[in-house]
Amino acid sequence: MNDADFDEYTAFARELALRARVETMPRFRQGLAIDNKLAQETGDAFDPVTEADREAEKVIRSLIERRYPGHGILGEEFGEKESDGPFRWVLDPVDGTRAFICGVPSWTTLIALEVDGRQKVGVIDLPWPGEMYIGGAGGACLVSGQDKWRIAVSGETQLSRARLSTTDPRAGECFTAAEADAFIDMSERVRVTRFGLDACAYALLAAGHLDLVIEAGLQRYDAAALVPVIEQAGGVVTDWNGEPVAGDWERQIEDGGQRGRLVAAASRDLLDSALEKLREV
Amino acid sequence: MNDADFDEYTAFARELALRARVETMPRFRQGLAIDNKLAQETGDAFDPVTEADREAEKVIRSLIERRYPGHGILGEEFGEKESDGPFRWVLDPVDGTRAFICGVPSWTTLIALEVDGRQKVGVIDLPWPGEMYIGGAGGACLVSGQDKWRIAVSGETQLSRARLSTTDPRAGECFTAAEADAFIDMSERVRVTRFGLDACAYALLAAGHLDLVIEAGLQRYDAAALVPVIEQAGGVVTDWNGEPVAGDWERQIEDGGQRGRLVAAASRDLLDSALEKLREV
Repeated sequence: MNDADFDEYTAFARELALRARVETMPRFRQGLAIDNKLAQETGDAFDPVTEADREAEKVIRSLIERRYPGHGILGEEFGEKESDGPFRWVLDPVDGTRAFICGVPSWTTLIALEVDGRQKVGVIDLPWPGEMYIGGAGGACLVSGQDKWRIAVSGETQLSRARLSTTDPRAGECFTAAEADAFIDMSERVRVTRFGLDACAYALLAAGHLDLVIEAGLQRYDAAALVPVIEQAGGVVTDWNGEPVAGDWERQIEDGGQRGRLVAAASRDLLDSALEKLREV
Repeated sequence: MNDADFDEYTAFARELALRARVETMPRFRQGLAIDNKLAQETGDAFDPVTEADREAEKVIRSLIERRYPGHGILGEEFGEKESDGPFRWVLDPVDGTRAFICGVPSWTTLIALEVDGRQKVGVIDLPWPGEMYIGGAGGACLVSGQDKWRIAVSGETQLSRARLSTTDPRAGECFTAAEADAFIDMSERVRVTRFGLDACAYALLAAGHLDLVIEAGLQRYDAAALVPVIEQAGGVVTDWNGEPVAGDWERQIEDGGQRGRLVAAASRDLLDSALEKLREV
């Protein structure tokens, strides 16, 4: 596989994300009125985020099946379509459903192409601000409307200067109690800590605005798209043991061993400093 | 004072926020390159958020002084201009400076007009997405480009169904340990909890997307602009004892008694349920 092949897949991943916006955007910040109206009519609560998630995944899957019938597909809503070949698309049409139902525009559409279990193309799309972060063989870029910029991590190496993020620091949510303690300890060593960003945090890291993102409890479809965006922007992503998010990472989640622990950093030195603390958990 | 007077002040507050964008927007997400370049040239770190804050406040203050020379002004960066009259403008040109330095577009420009110590006009402006939430005598609205919508709170009354938010739940930051415990306890009683939104949370509450926002450690300039936006949208804002953010709220902060504790809710019933728990702190 050469760069030209990757360019085709990267362009297709971008098409998929743009098409998903048609399903997700009209349902964002519309929940309340529709919810109340339908609940009165039918006695059932209407769930716009679930509908956005499902309709977007249906559209994406049908476009992939038409264009690449031999490729595998793993999606949050409709499970896995197996394939004998090396290609698998990994999809989360609406990552950050809690943000979505609270009107917070940090929810994203995540699309990855894995080849032999390694993420080669990744899209983190923020439909509401219209920002698409893309990582592929050609590098990493941010596309907004007709504009396109190459992006790069900050390169920060010092924990004491790092801008750190996680979505929810509470014990018992994404983190176990021990993981939450480790995160709070880390947050006391860095320059500044931000919360609530979902997959946006990884996009901001790739674009040089954050330096360190630490999370746990992620699924394959939460993680796959992040990897090429960050790596192509010059950053590093591993689990909390320093192992790549590849091959058997998913099985490790199923076994309960790793619990989808992810750390992304703007440099190898910063990653190593963070891992040193996280390995103690 | 009649509605026509308020319309003049509301329109002027909107002008101030638009003018502030000229100072803040070009400095957002530019920190890294400028920082490195200037640091090499001068040996000093350049601080784009401080510059945005100061330059925006200078511009706003000069516009107020030209238009209403007899009005008082309280700003985060340049302190208080006293006045004998009933009018005082309360300004935070960049609220959410930590978000700003992390490339997170939840920072806002906050502008309030107080009359005899009560907030009568409020603007919560989100320059990056271009969303301005305005509360005045004419009601509450969201202005985005040429579009304008009236906004209203959800009216949610049940804690178990509420969408709750605070910016940073850690003890030792905005919250004391006791306040942080109270917040975590509250978060276990509600439907969903989101973090990291700064003053955006209050705007989202006014627009019906969140139902409850609980914070502490706020200053007058963090709080004043929120009040008219939420109240005009049908919501309620008090301190943790149910007292209004008015008159001597600021002195209470100085005395250390209230520590800038704020709770905003989508209904009086929801507020009362929250206050019942918070009063125990």
